[in-house]
Amino acid sequence: MNYSMIRYTLGWLLLFEAAFFALPLVCSLIYSDGALLAFFFSMLICAALGSLMIIKKPKKTGFYAKEGFVIVSLSWIFLSIFGAMPFMFSGVTSSYIDALFETASGFTTTGASIFTEVEWLPKSILLWRSFTHWVGGMGVLVFIMAFLPLSGGHNMHIMRAESPGPEVSKLVPKVRNTAIILYGIYFAITVIQFVALLISGMNVFDSINTTFSTAGTGGFGVKNDSLASASSAQQIIVTVFMLIFSVNFNSYYLVLKCKFKDAFNTEVRVFIGIVIAAIAIITFNVFSARDYFQDIGEAIRHVAFTVASIISTTGFTTTNFDIWPSLSRTIIVLLMFVGACAGSTGGGIKCSRIVILIKGMFRELRTIIHPRQVKKITIDSRPVEHEVLRSVNAYIVTFITVFIFSLLIISFDNHDLITSFTSVAATINNVGPGLGEAYSNFTAFSPLSKIVFIFDMLAGRLELFPMLILFSPLTYKKS
Amino acid sequence: MNYSMIRYTLGWLLLFEAAFFALPLVCSLIYSDGALLAFFFSMLICAALGSLMIIKKPKKTGFYAKEGFVIVSLSWIFLSIFGAMPFMFSGVTSSYIDALFETASGFTTTGASIFTEVEWLPKSILLWRSFTHWVGGMGVLVFIMAFLPLSGGHNMHIMRAESPGPEVSKLVPKVRNTAIILYGIYFAITVIQFVALLISGMNVFDSINTTFSTAGTGGFGVKNDSLASASSAQQIIVTVFMLIFSVNFNSYYLVLKCKFKDAFNTEVRVFIGIVIAAIAIITFNVFSARDYFQDIGEAIRHVAFTVASIISTTGFTTTNFDIWPSLSRTIIVLLMFVGACAGSTGGGIKCSRIVILIKGMFRELRTIIHPRQVKKITIDSRPVEHEVLRSVNAYIVTFITVFIFSLLIISFDNHDLITSFTSVAATINNVGPGLGEAYSNFTAFSPLSKIVFIFDMLAGRLELFPMLILFSPLTYKKS
Repeated sequence: MNYSMIRYTLGWLLLFEAAFFALPLVCSLIYSDGALLAFFFSMLICAALGSLMIIKKPKKTGFYAKEGFVIVSLSWIFLSIFGAMPFMFSGVTSSYIDALFETASGFTTTGASIFTEVEWLPKSILLWRSFTHWVGGMGVLVFIMAFLPLSGGHNMHIMRAESPGPEVSKLVPKVRNTAIILYGIYFAITVIQFVALLISGMNVFDSINTTFSTAGTGGFGVKNDSLASASSAQQIIVTVFMLIFSVNFNSYYLVLKCKFKDAFNTEVRVFIGIVIAAIAIITFNVFSARDYFQDIGEAIRHVAFTVASIISTTGFTTTNFDIWPSLSRTIIVLLMFVGACAGSTGGGIKCSRIVILIKGMFRELRTIIHPRQVKKITIDSRPVEHEVLRSVNAYIVTFITVFIFSLLIISFDNHDLITSFTSVAATINNVGPGLGEAYSNFTAFSPLSKIVFIFDMLAGRLELFPMLILFSPLTYKKS
Repeated sequence: MNYSMIRYTLGWLLLFEAAFFALPLVCSLIYSDGALLAFFFSMLICAALGSLMIIKKPKKTGFYAKEGFVIVSLSWIFLSIFGAMPFMFSGVTSSYIDALFETASGFTTTGASIFTEVEWLPKSILLWRSFTHWVGGMGVLVFIMAFLPLSGGHNMHIMRAESPGPEVSKLVPKVRNTAIILYGIYFAITVIQFVALLISGMNVFDSINTTFSTAGTGGFGVKNDSLASASSAQQIIVTVFMLIFSVNFNSYYLVLKCKFKDAFNTEVRVFIGIVIAAIAIITFNVFSARDYFQDIGEAIRHVAFTVASIISTTGFTTTNFDIWPSLSRTIIVLLMFVGACAGSTGGGIKCSRIVILIKGMFRELRTIIHPRQVKKITIDSRPVEHEVLRSVNAYIVTFITVFIFSLLIISFDNHDLITSFTSVAATINNVGPGLGEAYSNFTAFSPLSKIVFIFDMLAGRLELFPMLILFSPLTYKKS
């Protein structure tokens, strides 16, 4: 284990976090919201500690896959631990676990909050919450790699550990350039949404925050009612951009390269298919079951928003879907697990994994019917390697295992089963709101449960294996 | 596809079903309960139809795996369709879907009932319900094979399709002899439980029924309160035998052969470990949370009974566990999915599959940490073949897929999510009672939902693939 390389990377990470604090610090200056010192001291601590950690350069910069996983998990834990400082220093919460929960929820783009009211929070704190979404969305180390050539030729290990999806492909030969392209696309679409919201009449501050939250598919809002009081046009803009940020960013690169057929691949088509099917069924169910909405247009708008918000794992709300009929709520819970496309900012199990699993199932049935014709699964005319299928299968088992252990610990709180189940689903899939008592915020849970949720949010964002490898004794044994 | 062989086997199946009706028919004669003609005509129809179907012997008796799966699924569907006749003819229900539900629930050893009160049912109908559990428990075609050399050397295909678990091994070289040994063990333990209940003071009729239900891990009772009004001794006897019938019958054969170490294999140890852990945690939770029970002895007795009943997928009850605290109910729901050991009469996913999946997960973590050391998983010092692991992974995906589709259709009934979720869990795992409205019986569901449950019970009992292959167009295509 290359410990000095881990120390060195974490040092740079803290320096970047210190730089991140500059944005809310300036915001605090502009609005004189009283949180200036909170951000100033947070910045100072990160900068000081980070500088100390990078003084001594590591002799060997190379490392293996397991170090990549350890660096990535530790980075996200560090980010959350130090990112929680402004919440404490500004006095908006007196519980460090709550502050940590809020920060982890931010960086992991979950959007579950421990605040019952957000409108009384200092504007700089609101901006920090949204900004953590934006930073966490595309991956922090991928971001750092875009600016800093950290570790010679071993960046791929980090990218693989941090990027969502069963397979990570480089768009261009160099990992660093791939990172720059991806963050460029991210930045561009973010700007477009910001401008669109401005045009729709939203003020600058709300537009920035809403855009950051949407881009990271996070879900922290600046209003107590999330986006319920936003105009129809604004709700539609956010709906569209939540879906845009759920698609693999590689597809946008391929569109820029005019490779439209490659961009519109199986995963994207499946994602769009699920979205349309879910909107159609829920609209039918909600509109026919009871008078939830006045007209079909309103129903479609709210249902489309909710479906986009849940499948993208953003978690914004415009209406209380917890009171919708059973079929609709069941579909919403299922969408939490489906999640977005690989290589997007969204969470969940990811459409590509689901495609691989379903194809694996049909292959098994075919094998029973014709035992001599065992064929590899193909997606977009390319064979899925045995290792990928094995890894995806192991991923699902790991997911279920982490889910069950979390659920058991949460159950000590003695909430109803729906609350317990959906609160774990909402955190491990980085969605945000659950059903029942976990619908609007997470204040109802015990500190122990919140620690479990923090673990689940981080584990979910990093797709399980990095966090498990960090805590596995085998990682530190000499082989 | 060897259609004449399928016809021939189904013909013999109907003749056996006609013979099965003899038991309730005699019972009806003894008690003069008014259902004599119902069983007489049912017997007549099965015998007549069965005889017609076996007149012409098939030219080719050989068949492939897919025919094995089709024969097994069709057999269970036929058994249920014709086994439902006495419920209609005796007038205890006027709905054929209800009668079919009750019969499928019987043969699949689920034990979910559409009757709100069972004590007013004719005694012969009660006996028929319990007897379907006993017949279904060890497998109907395995039973027939024990008496009838049906298909030359291809019995293994049938045994593989009907027997629960990821791998089916022959105890002795001949499949038929293996079937005879397994049914012999089944019969012997059944007799022991019957005698034990008689000694405990239970009357003959109740002892026979309770034993049949326990042996098949079914759960149909002869009292409205299941076993709540049984004596403590009787509850303890049933607890012990529910667990005994949950263990792989191969283990009992190995015990008879004095191979104790082989008998006490990983799956059995894991099963016992889960049972003990579940009893300990639930007892602690129930006893500390509120005054559910007067003393710790009473608590342990009821908790042990409930845990044994759920993990064995029997479904008997002595106390209302639906009011227990969240943690306990969560564990109970999880136990429904775990289920019994492979090669037992119990349902669920099976402990051996769970062991394989968990080992696969740890193997994947090891592979990430040490990429060059990819090793096969071993269980009891024997390597798990790649095909078995692949099949178990596909099984889980298939399970989740069938579960989700069922849940979506059930949700049209607009029950609360707990009722919908646990009703599907209780049927696909062949447990019987769910939580909420599915706790005591299934009368609250629509006919459409009941059809889904019938499919789930059959699919669950036959471990998914046979039913899917029966309905897959690919099965009937010429290759």
